[in-house]
Amino acid sequence: MGTKEDIEEGAEFIPKFDDNGLITAIAQDSQSGQTLMVAYMNRQALELTIQTGYATYFSRSRQKIWKKGEESGHVQKVEQILVDCDQDCLILKVIVDAGQCHVGYRSCFYRALKKNTDKKLEFIADKAYDPQKIYRK
Amino acid sequence: MGTKEDIEEGAEFIPKFDDNGLITAIAQDSQSGQTLMVAYMNRQALELTIQTGYATYFSRSRQKIWKKGEESGHVQKVEQILVDCDQDCLILKVIVDAGQCHVGYRSCFYRALKKNTDKKLEFIADKAYDPQKIYRK
Repeated sequence: MGTKEDIEEGAEFIPKFDDNGLITAIAQDSQSGQTLMVAYMNRQALELTIQTGYATYFSRSRQKIWKKGEESGHVQKVEQILVDCDQDCLILKVIVDAGQCHVGYRSCFYRALKKNTDKKLEFIADKAYDPQKIYRK
Repeated sequence: MGTKEDIEEGAEFIPKFDDNGLITAIAQDSQSGQTLMVAYMNRQALELTIQTGYATYFSRSRQKIWKKGEESGHVQKVEQILVDCDQDCLILKVIVDAGQCHVGYRSCFYRALKKNTDKKLEFIADKAYDPQKIYRK
């Protein structure tokens, strides 16, 4: 497992998976710095991401390995993987095309809380593509 | 709770807390775009963050509300709160001073996986302050 010092100050990658075997992974545009999405990986998804160079997650709702873009084509090419101090969270610096979020936006974070409210959101982005054209079955 | 359409396409803030009553919150430097840390909020921490304008989290290890910087002085002034498509993750765009991570770095993400390895980390940042000077008890 590693001591606190190993984990925080060391040069060994000791990713810490939670009780469900998952680690949080943030996909961040390597060029703009925009945060695109947050998802989860199990050990296999992390290994596949490292081996293939393309972001692969574990879907909690579907309980299966999920290569980002396998349906939509919006893959994430991984440039760099960062880990945080206690090694329980990852950032993937990725190269992407225009659309990333299944709703149609580039980033899943397309709304912000309005100033001086605690209930109202405002849209801060325009849709980058039409999801109905991609996710038809 | 809201329908899928309300949650994804609506302008109502309906944050979704997990089975432990927590929502993931990413603190991102509002000026540089650097991701600083990832933490968790319960409903009270989120309300305090909105009310006070300073990032307040819920510590899973200590099981208590935790105003970021209450010990270290490294507070996070919240400029904007973003929410993702399924409203189970937040980004706080924050203004911070130099040091943020308890290990001494500006960001908790101060190491990256070395290219063509799956076990070795490299340090990508220098320490911004000496944590021993701040966290003495």
